[in-house]
Amino acid sequence: MTVPSNRPAGGRLAILAGGGPLPAQIAAAALDSGEKPFVVLIDGEAEADPVYERCERAAFRIEDFALLRARLNEEGVKRLVMAGTVGRRPRLSAMRLSADILKLLPRALRAMASGDDVLLRLVVSYFEDRGIRVVGAQEIVPDLLTASGDLAKARPTKADRADIEAGIAAARALGALDIGQAAIAIGGRVVALEDIDGTQSLLRRVAALRGHGRLAGKKRGVLVKCAKPQQELRADLPAIGPETVRDAAAAGLAGIALDAGHTFILDQARTLAAADEAGLFILGVEVPR
Amino acid sequence: MTVPSNRPAGGRLAILAGGGPLPAQIAAAALDSGEKPFVVLIDGEAEADPVYERCERAAFRIEDFALLRARLNEEGVKRLVMAGTVGRRPRLSAMRLSADILKLLPRALRAMASGDDVLLRLVVSYFEDRGIRVVGAQEIVPDLLTASGDLAKARPTKADRADIEAGIAAARALGALDIGQAAIAIGGRVVALEDIDGTQSLLRRVAALRGHGRLAGKKRGVLVKCAKPQQELRADLPAIGPETVRDAAAAGLAGIALDAGHTFILDQARTLAAADEAGLFILGVEVPR
Repeated sequence: MTVPSNRPAGGRLAILAGGGPLPAQIAAAALDSGEKPFVVLIDGEAEADPVYERCERAAFRIEDFALLRARLNEEGVKRLVMAGTVGRRPRLSAMRLSADILKLLPRALRAMASGDDVLLRLVVSYFEDRGIRVVGAQEIVPDLLTASGDLAKARPTKADRADIEAGIAAARALGALDIGQAAIAIGGRVVALEDIDGTQSLLRRVAALRGHGRLAGKKRGVLVKCAKPQQELRADLPAIGPETVRDAAAAGLAGIALDAGHTFILDQARTLAAADEAGLFILGVEVPR
Repeated sequence: MTVPSNRPAGGRLAILAGGGPLPAQIAAAALDSGEKPFVVLIDGEAEADPVYERCERAAFRIEDFALLRARLNEEGVKRLVMAGTVGRRPRLSAMRLSADILKLLPRALRAMASGDDVLLRLVVSYFEDRGIRVVGAQEIVPDLLTASGDLAKARPTKADRADIEAGIAAARALGALDIGQAAIAIGGRVVALEDIDGTQSLLRRVAALRGHGRLAGKKRGVLVKCAKPQQELRADLPAIGPETVRDAAAAGLAGIALDAGHTFILDQARTLAAADEAGLFILGVEVPR
């Protein structure tokens, strides 16, 4: 049996596109493999990208979530990938309501308070109960997954390995609490943790901390990003890109360690080139699960 | 048998004074109870305080640690309380060496890398092996320990209780990793964690985060401070003071929850007055151990 190229196995793909470069990279990969993705650009979150112009697409306010399913059905969507960041919470007063959203609302409100994971599982089950399979970005762009081992030219020292170990323990503990997914260790100790303000803010904080008495004379240090122990693989995996590498270099770090197979390296060529230029290592670590 | 007032039970007390108001409060309490404390002011750390002028005292560079024991012996010191913050790490090149410090050095270097707790245990055993008992500040100033229950006029709401619970879990996890001892929860979720830059920096960060999309429309929130699960009770317990309350109010928080019996409220009258003025609750919570 031949699968027509505009009807790939599993049915038409939609990309629910939030902020950052990941959604556009998924769209490009889907186009490359002959799919015709339908891109839903989340208003105020999705970034402009030329690849979107090559896709059928619609803008969408989070408050109009109730209308999304019908639109996806019209477009013949059978698979949905949710990608990119959503920084803004919907204004409830502006929420478009429908019977199935009303039913969902009490659980959604609880979920919004108790963390991203819970909210995400709710959204996943909402679509899957309605015939749209939610797939992880890594099913569309497996090339972005972090491989094991040294990925840039620089290599971690023995001291860096102590930082990596301390950072992994902290990032996993943070993730278990659904707070953040990144930690920075310097001189064998974790000095700062990611919170809701994200990795860029974490790196800038550490750049400022370099003058701190307790870090005086300490060089190097490592940014560690790990998936949560309970990571919902259909949510965005933790990711780095070229900007992360430049911010890590500006924070005086020696390298970046990533949870192999459970994190993304976006824009891989430019990211690794940025690491080589700054002399940073990038290491994919097999984290026991 | 009568114990002379300048020779209290347990022998003469020395206070190794770092930054912050705690060492001066210990000195004042010791004077009030008729002791003649010998105050060792750590150079660049101890703050000027009139109470120190009423004590026999000596300035001391951390690099001169090797000379400290002999000086304490000369002063007839039998008990030592180490109090206040030490932000600066000693410069090894300036370290004064002695036979017993040379023996200690390899372990000290490892300890400095692996965390405050390990370093502290090393210092405690160094003094105790040499006939000076290291006591916790709470033995001298038990009044500063946080009591259970509502300590200021305002009361936490039901929603605040969810913040308190989330904050305790996070602060304990942080403490177990020896990273920090404070967390801030808003809307039922932990949004930021203390790192080596301390509680004031944490509160300022949250003040800045108030404009963040994910906190839009969220009011209140709670600062939680807990002792580490493995807390060495002879080290400073986590503490708040009037400045903490003012910074918490500036960060838009509704209150502060503290690990009852395992945290200090410094300058208690002014701290509670600051809370009442700002309308913040201060709650002592019995944390299961």
